[in-house]
Amino acid sequence: MTPEAQLALIERGTVDIFVRDELVKKLSEGRPLTVKAGFDPTAPDLHLGHTVLLNKLRLLQELGHEVVFLVGDFTALIGDPTGKSTTRPPLSEAEVALNAKTYAEQVFRILDRERTRVAFNSEWFGTMHAADMIRLAGQQTVARMLERDDFSKRYGSGQPISIHEFLYPLVQGYDSVALEADIELGGTDQTFNLLMGRQLQEHFGQRPQTVITLPLLEGLDGVNKMSKSLNNYIGITDPPDEMFGKTMRISDTLMWRYYELLSEDSLEQIAARRVRVAQGENPKHAKEDLAEAFTARFHGPDAGLAAREAFNARFARGELPADIPIVTLVAGADGVPMGVALREAGLTASSSEAMRMLKQGAVKVDGERVQAADLVFEAGQTVLIQVGKRRIARVTFATPESDSQ
Amino acid sequence: MTPEAQLALIERGTVDIFVRDELVKKLSEGRPLTVKAGFDPTAPDLHLGHTVLLNKLRLLQELGHEVVFLVGDFTALIGDPTGKSTTRPPLSEAEVALNAKTYAEQVFRILDRERTRVAFNSEWFGTMHAADMIRLAGQQTVARMLERDDFSKRYGSGQPISIHEFLYPLVQGYDSVALEADIELGGTDQTFNLLMGRQLQEHFGQRPQTVITLPLLEGLDGVNKMSKSLNNYIGITDPPDEMFGKTMRISDTLMWRYYELLSEDSLEQIAARRVRVAQGENPKHAKEDLAEAFTARFHGPDAGLAAREAFNARFARGELPADIPIVTLVAGADGVPMGVALREAGLTASSSEAMRMLKQGAVKVDGERVQAADLVFEAGQTVLIQVGKRRIARVTFATPESDSQ
Repeated sequence: MTPEAQLALIERGTVDIFVRDELVKKLSEGRPLTVKAGFDPTAPDLHLGHTVLLNKLRLLQELGHEVVFLVGDFTALIGDPTGKSTTRPPLSEAEVALNAKTYAEQVFRILDRERTRVAFNSEWFGTMHAADMIRLAGQQTVARMLERDDFSKRYGSGQPISIHEFLYPLVQGYDSVALEADIELGGTDQTFNLLMGRQLQEHFGQRPQTVITLPLLEGLDGVNKMSKSLNNYIGITDPPDEMFGKTMRISDTLMWRYYELLSEDSLEQIAARRVRVAQGENPKHAKEDLAEAFTARFHGPDAGLAAREAFNARFARGELPADIPIVTLVAGADGVPMGVALREAGLTASSSEAMRMLKQGAVKVDGERVQAADLVFEAGQTVLIQVGKRRIARVTFATPESDSQ
Repeated sequence: MTPEAQLALIERGTVDIFVRDELVKKLSEGRPLTVKAGFDPTAPDLHLGHTVLLNKLRLLQELGHEVVFLVGDFTALIGDPTGKSTTRPPLSEAEVALNAKTYAEQVFRILDRERTRVAFNSEWFGTMHAADMIRLAGQQTVARMLERDDFSKRYGSGQPISIHEFLYPLVQGYDSVALEADIELGGTDQTFNLLMGRQLQEHFGQRPQTVITLPLLEGLDGVNKMSKSLNNYIGITDPPDEMFGKTMRISDTLMWRYYELLSEDSLEQIAARRVRVAQGENPKHAKEDLAEAFTARFHGPDAGLAAREAFNARFARGELPADIPIVTLVAGADGVPMGVALREAGLTASSSEAMRMLKQGAVKVDGERVQAADLVFEAGQTVLIQVGKRRIARVTFATPESDSQ
């Protein structure tokens, strides 16, 4: 395949390529390129959001290149040295090893095991001395670091940024030096860190890696980034029926987004399908096809078909409507009281209507009638709430802080 | 001596003590306290500016405490990793060892060798791992670091601050942990870094050190901080006549400042002297006493007296006036042309007057008549310039960048 033809395949669904011409040049060299992708071993459950990246890695493998699946265990072993974040405690070496193993098992559902090298950055950072870390820190300025979107926002709003957080992008960038990466892939939220790799490689006399950024996949709510903590995700180890059912609940708009970013259909096939739906084909069928494809990819073709049949059988029995809207509400430390939840989820027009419906016994939570107005939902809960027969929503109560994809 | 009596001696000439009550408590424990003072081994020539600190250390030794003379060789070995500053190239281990030796020889003209421990922070940082440096970096926030005066100014004016510069205050602070320092002394420009020691000691479960800050001594020009690069200093290894002569050239105002900060006279004695001068005593005698005291301290009492006699003999012969004003002009890469130097040193009222005086043959540089208007002075030069018989100045051409004291 010509470098240009390879580029066309690689480019689909990407956001940016730094720098496109360099990539064409590298592709034309005919050697297997080293493609780096970093993973944070603190949260080893992969979901469809991760597969945007994994599918692209798989494509690069099919084009003959080698993927380095880099486990960022060095920083995971350190955790958050400020001790302020309870969400990032340091992991033990055993936990990191276990997470990495879990991760690897999951990614090899997509990646080609033969063309994947699993690496741990503790290999080079575990023995690095403080002096070299200081030298590395000399390669970037405070001002440039504060230009990074999230730092800029936090600094601007007076939220503390610990100095070690300025070192982590340098750590990630130096990984590219250690691996002599030709290409690195990541989400758009990683752009700054990915470009740091280019800068450090140049400093160390290497040819800078090509950086390819990919979009962040919206979760099932169609608004927030897909993430475990928002509970708006399809996990790649979810059981077939759950995978199928979750896909059926996404909006029609989001369905097309998922088609583009996640399906194996060509862009032409997808465009043709859209035309058919616009001309009257029931979008439910397109959604079923997508749901079946997801399920089949992770559980095999039979499982995909079986999930589709089971879903339709349940639907035919009228157990639940096929597409229940998914709503995410942010729950603070005090949780969300019933009345507020009903109003904010759009199930009642006002709090007073909520109170009336509760009193009348018209509210069900997970199928059970609830009349207590003082019931409080907590962050982490996902419940099915019905008001009367027609108003229904699957409501997730999320913590204000969202994790990284 | 009671803790309160010790405190009174320690407090003389200091700017701040963090925290005074803690210090009284430590002094009352009756054990020898560990007193830390850090030195940068990049510029081993000590001048009177350093003796403000050294005298205080000597006092603490006389009160029975142990001084740790800490050579900051770890960061000197790293130098400036950005490679942008030509003034801070990394030193070799041999250079650091040599500088430290030179330093030690100089400080033992003031400190008590028996109660001084020389330490090098490479002892603990040389073997420290990158992971521990990251953990250390977790102990401070970007916002707090940017509050430090110099960082705040540089950040505000768009001058780059390299991230490794944020690590150096943490390095200095950790030195206090490694030494389990009870007290640290430093100039007021070090306040932020000194307080960092307190913070890190608390984090590592130690009692925080008492921080004592001392004023920065003005140089011979009475304006800028005494520093080698501005050539406005009296070096403690300067020959007796030079030491005496330089002291005689300071202003009367600066003389009282030096009396307070550098002499061994009590504050009562100094106050009495000021009264006598105000009542008509020639300030030249007070200045001679000060110059003799400095010379005697570093070269012995005989040398002090001999320098005084030699100075007065030269003065009696009318070779030069006793108090020639000292002027520092900043010289860029292109130097300072003669006409500009004459005007800026206040020796002529304008450039055109400068040209006229040159033409008339009224200008002497270091005793030699000069008529060339295109003569250019370069940074680093110090010359005696005379215009006619009465206008005279000792002019130092300094680089725009000044080093640390």
